[in-house]
Amino acid sequence: MSPFRKPQKFYRNLTPSEQQQLTEQLNAQYCRIILDYFSRNSQTNEQIEKFVEQAFLADLPTSKVIEIHMDLISQFSQQLKLEGRNDEVLLDYRLTLIDVLSHLSERYRRSIPLSKFK
Amino acid sequence: MSPFRKPQKFYRNLTPSEQQQLTEQLNAQYCRIILDYFSRNSQTNEQIEKFVEQAFLADLPTSKVIEIHMDLISQFSQQLKLEGRNDEVLLDYRLTLIDVLSHLSERYRRSIPLSKFK
Repeated sequence: MSPFRKPQKFYRNLTPSEQQQLTEQLNAQYCRIILDYFSRNSQTNEQIEKFVEQAFLADLPTSKVIEIHMDLISQFSQQLKLEGRNDEVLLDYRLTLIDVLSHLSERYRRSIPLSKFK
Repeated sequence: MSPFRKPQKFYRNLTPSEQQQLTEQLNAQYCRIILDYFSRNSQTNEQIEKFVEQAFLADLPTSKVIEIHMDLISQFSQQLKLEGRNDEVLLDYRLTLIDVLSHLSERYRRSIPLSKFK
């Protein structure tokens, strides 16, 4: 059972510096997920669940998750280009994004109470 | 404003034949989205919104959307192989899935009432 969400902890209600701090935290978590994803070690699912729970508590819009993904892939791409390597391999990480979005969508879906819809 | 969701319309509460019918309907809608996606005609967003609304009303698990995507891509792949063509182009449709999952996640997120969380 996750703790109740608090609107004052929602991303949109944070101060700019708190937003920055949360974004950096999520960036670091997402980077770890990406780096470990295809090794599929036992921690990958746990890392995704942790990231998704953070996003859920902050009522994070999906677009923000996509932004985190794009920023990271863009950094990786620049690095690979500097090394003269092909960055096509980065396309595979779309699978990671699909997995994370899928978990996040389920997290939000399961939080809609049965008795009240809007 | 979307109509209230009715639990008796949820996918998991439908009879097997109703589930089959809804799945076929969603398959057809998703197929249309995929086929039109990269032409980005003015209807693509509308088609995605319609698909997402159907999924939302049926409280469809995200895994079901991924299943619909995989089944369709698998059919396309078989067809391309029969024609002796490379099916790598199908990887691009992961972008479509990301777009649809992103919309669905937002639909669920925005339906969580502010005053009640679980």
